[in-house]
Amino acid sequence: MFSEHLKSIMDGVEGAIACSVMGFDGIAVETLPNDMPESAVQLDLQAAWIEFANLMSQAKVTAETLKTGKVTELSINSENVITLLRMVNQDYFLVVGLLPSGNYGKARYVLRITAPKVAKEL
Amino acid sequence: MFSEHLKSIMDGVEGAIACSVMGFDGIAVETLPNDMPESAVQLDLQAAWIEFANLMSQAKVTAETLKTGKVTELSINSENVITLLRMVNQDYFLVVGLLPSGNYGKARYVLRITAPKVAKEL
Repeated sequence: MFSEHLKSIMDGVEGAIACSVMGFDGIAVETLPNDMPESAVQLDLQAAWIEFANLMSQAKVTAETLKTGKVTELSINSENVITLLRMVNQDYFLVVGLLPSGNYGKARYVLRITAPKVAKEL
Repeated sequence: MFSEHLKSIMDGVEGAIACSVMGFDGIAVETLPNDMPESAVQLDLQAAWIEFANLMSQAKVTAETLKTGKVTELSINSENVITLLRMVNQDYFLVVGLLPSGNYGKARYVLRITAPKVAKEL
């Protein structure tokens, strides 16, 4: 199930704080860890992800009018957290929150290989 | 001047198609190369960047209400081009369009060190 894939993200990416399968409506299907660590609570990742889902949704719609092609990935790097979003299908995406010192390249790689696995189960 | 900094981005990043200093109003202050290569014309990067400037602007405003901190970098990866945007100051940002096969890590690095140099001249 989703939790298995989310676990592989958490285990595979140094500095990952939390990750989720989310809909473009900003509602999370499943999130790990179940109990958000203190760092995620302090950063209020839940609120941030709802806003970023909205940005991802806009990027998706905008891309349809552009020649740059479908959006596959969006990354929003801010002072306290790196957020990486990876399209799963037209309705869902994966999101991971990383410490600024986290392994960004590894996060991109793990999301890229995990997205098709999640897509199969949706 | 700006063109010198933009040149260092174009020279330093394998796969860079074009780069620009832009305002959040979507108006480019300066862009390199002066004559957009055929690949950039086909991708209509100019239109894409205006839309992405709008997304970056929203991300900036949204971040003010979030605990994740100021947005420093936004990356929109689509099928045909990777776009990296780096905040310069409250009004301007750097943007570079890369081939999907381009050196993404190098682009992030070069933008990060170039942004403060551009900021000094604005």
